[in-house]
Amino acid sequence: MATITGTDHAPPTGPQGAAAGLDLHLVRPHGRVRDSLMEALRDAIRSGRLAPGARLPSSRTLAADLGVARNTVARAYSELVAEGWLASQHGSGTTVSPRAADVLRSLTSRRTRPPPRPPDHDLRPGHPDLSSFPREEWSRAVKRALHDAPTEAFGYADPHGRPELREALAEYLARARGVRSDPDDIVICSGAAEGLDLVAAALADDGVGAVAVEEFALPTQRLSLTAAGLRCPPLTVDPEGADVRALDTMPDVGAVVLTPSHQFPLGAPLHSDRRAAVIDWARRKGGVVIEDDYDGEFRYDRSPVGALHGVDPECVVYLGTVSKSLAPGLRLGWFVLPHRLVEAVIRQKGETESTCGFVEQLAMADFIRSGAYDRHIRTMRAQYRRRREQLVAAVSRASPDTVVAGLPAGLHVVLQLSGGGESRLAGRPPWRRLAVEGLDLYRHPDAESDRDGVVVGFAAPAPSAWSAALAALVHLLP
Amino acid sequence: MATITGTDHAPPTGPQGAAAGLDLHLVRPHGRVRDSLMEALRDAIRSGRLAPGARLPSSRTLAADLGVARNTVARAYSELVAEGWLASQHGSGTTVSPRAADVLRSLTSRRTRPPPRPPDHDLRPGHPDLSSFPREEWSRAVKRALHDAPTEAFGYADPHGRPELREALAEYLARARGVRSDPDDIVICSGAAEGLDLVAAALADDGVGAVAVEEFALPTQRLSLTAAGLRCPPLTVDPEGADVRALDTMPDVGAVVLTPSHQFPLGAPLHSDRRAAVIDWARRKGGVVIEDDYDGEFRYDRSPVGALHGVDPECVVYLGTVSKSLAPGLRLGWFVLPHRLVEAVIRQKGETESTCGFVEQLAMADFIRSGAYDRHIRTMRAQYRRRREQLVAAVSRASPDTVVAGLPAGLHVVLQLSGGGESRLAGRPPWRRLAVEGLDLYRHPDAESDRDGVVVGFAAPAPSAWSAALAALVHLLP
Repeated sequence: MATITGTDHAPPTGPQGAAAGLDLHLVRPHGRVRDSLMEALRDAIRSGRLAPGARLPSSRTLAADLGVARNTVARAYSELVAEGWLASQHGSGTTVSPRAADVLRSLTSRRTRPPPRPPDHDLRPGHPDLSSFPREEWSRAVKRALHDAPTEAFGYADPHGRPELREALAEYLARARGVRSDPDDIVICSGAAEGLDLVAAALADDGVGAVAVEEFALPTQRLSLTAAGLRCPPLTVDPEGADVRALDTMPDVGAVVLTPSHQFPLGAPLHSDRRAAVIDWARRKGGVVIEDDYDGEFRYDRSPVGALHGVDPECVVYLGTVSKSLAPGLRLGWFVLPHRLVEAVIRQKGETESTCGFVEQLAMADFIRSGAYDRHIRTMRAQYRRRREQLVAAVSRASPDTVVAGLPAGLHVVLQLSGGGESRLAGRPPWRRLAVEGLDLYRHPDAESDRDGVVVGFAAPAPSAWSAALAALVHLLP
Repeated sequence: MATITGTDHAPPTGPQGAAAGLDLHLVRPHGRVRDSLMEALRDAIRSGRLAPGARLPSSRTLAADLGVARNTVARAYSELVAEGWLASQHGSGTTVSPRAADVLRSLTSRRTRPPPRPPDHDLRPGHPDLSSFPREEWSRAVKRALHDAPTEAFGYADPHGRPELREALAEYLARARGVRSDPDDIVICSGAAEGLDLVAAALADDGVGAVAVEEFALPTQRLSLTAAGLRCPPLTVDPEGADVRALDTMPDVGAVVLTPSHQFPLGAPLHSDRRAAVIDWARRKGGVVIEDDYDGEFRYDRSPVGALHGVDPECVVYLGTVSKSLAPGLRLGWFVLPHRLVEAVIRQKGETESTCGFVEQLAMADFIRSGAYDRHIRTMRAQYRRRREQLVAAVSRASPDTVVAGLPAGLHVVLQLSGGGESRLAGRPPWRRLAVEGLDLYRHPDAESDRDGVVVGFAAPAPSAWSAALAALVHLLP
């Protein structure tokens, strides 16, 4: 039976008659009949209903059978010949191409690994709520960006990134994070990880041998630095943030990576005295402060505190990303550089932009300028604030001796259980259905601190999954 | 004067009265009045018409003045306070935030370098016609991709790339290029350059010390290899393609980079005897053939010849990209790997996908599956074929002694001028308004060949600019 369903321009739904045993379903509701027919034929070949070598009905027969114009079928056949699905030889009609055998071989041998099974309750830190991604608004931003893009945007591109995005970011970062920057000193990258890779390589090229890091930090940070040949001695972290005064005792250190607005993962903000001290160190020493502002927009007790960058833009490399504010899957980040470092970092990128597609960049520029980015951040900030309050309340009800560390900010908390040994606990089976992480994961191998804790992200669950995740967490507390 | 223009929900166009000297233009035709008002206020601050510290009219006054609901104005004010544009203190009304000063500073100090002036006639090789990018169709593919994407797609991703795209590519490459692949052996990357970087690093890690290259090739190829610590001795190129028989005399070479379908830039296809010989070498030696299929879709005299990969998928790394077929600015490529190399290459990428955004990947999968990619390639193939014919005809009319080298394929030709010395000519002023390249740019430093030529790309000009570019070229021929 040949069946047409749901096509705008097609005859009424329903069986249209038999065609050489061909059962075709034409299901592209927005397309031309020819496209629907082509897609149905491709599907028949993919599924094996039409085998390589099989002969197709003549265009006249199939057209009569489907109740469409003969020309439509003839054109569909000839396009599929051009695409390699069908073969046509004068006198012997149209057959399924032998090449389709290769297609089928690749499909039947398919053993794509299933993605790893997600945990039942995902409370891993650093993951935003992906279900709240503003799909419609982003889609509109892409549409406008593609419509308005100058032709040159589609070509090999300036490694600095699109000027439209750098200008929108200069404006956004100034008012939202107190970052005073010139668009020319902003470089677009495919996320904070690529950003740190590039800065590390530029520093190493410039003769820097060591970069200090916080004793608790993302392990990928140390990977970026050591891959560039840099050593990375740790700075102690206490309730006033990283103890930057120790930099004066580290003569070979030329730069330091900090998370001033909300130490990752411990949660302290960098104390104002230390902010001043580290800028002072950088000025005296000619050093560089790399500020990873990974979640600076999310402060719940008051307005976000401005970035350290604002204190002295000529000492600070500011790293930002949409990974927490929108979605990591977009692979989009930026850094604001002291003017003297721009060319060194660009040299590391090469002559043209090698990673960031221009569509994302222009869409993000539109998203910022239209106010949609601010709106999305406000919505998410309200949701995350509520979740953090619920988490703190639930923990204090269920386990009054458990300490929730860190200031009201960001997408995670650190729980210090009364019994201790949380890191070991986080790695053991009872926690498996519930994905949380032990502080151990973030500890520098040379860290002096024996501090322990469970790092709980409260952003990742979809709104519908949040209560169950919170209940699962509370259930496991002592 | 406060003016509202072109807003769907707003009162009729025209002056609406004075509001504290505020001249507001509300111009978002598709938005809510509140959005229009917010955008107009942001613009007034950006342009300096509203200075930091300036007091705004009360929401009641402005609402009456604009003929909109007071609530609309009040909400616009409060959103702009949240965004950092305005400040609000009880009793003292709403003012422009001091933070706006930072914004203005970054805008007024702006010195974004203008993009380099494009040549009058762009006949550089390797650049497709960007003006023919199917903006509408790509935009629809993005919209469908965003609508249908599973939530996990927005998160940190598998470094192999999206399974949807790898499956669509396995099917496409099998029928269009004769590449038999399992989707699990395909890895997505941000373009051929990143692809070669990753393969080079994996080979170097595996103990390979040298990778042979064609004596004329993209210079970035050698950069990728040497950056990974590999030496890259040249293979002679003659009218049968690279002379791969020399590999037997190079005991330390563990891999070879080739452009079998259409040697870049000389234009010869790799002879079938040599195809067999290089696969034979790879099997005997355990070597790897890296096939850069940069323009395999564009053959004009007959159907594209299948990729070398099809001969023995376990010896060949196949590199593909959308840079010639769609647009370099998308930063999207792929490689099909011998199964034994997949994990080594993925290790080079790291634990998660670090460069390719998921939106491009899903859009590309949709673009292939819907047939839009085939359609676009057919359209462009017809256009490029026509241009190549016009170019050959015009050159033979104007300069019968000039030889057009290379088979009817790809996006460029090599012109051998009767007088010789073309590379030097291509670098000199008379050619400046006309961007072409000399063969010198592509010559390996150790190449024995003293061959010369002008490499002319015929794809880059927009259709409206093609005739003038061709005329400018012909005008300069001897």
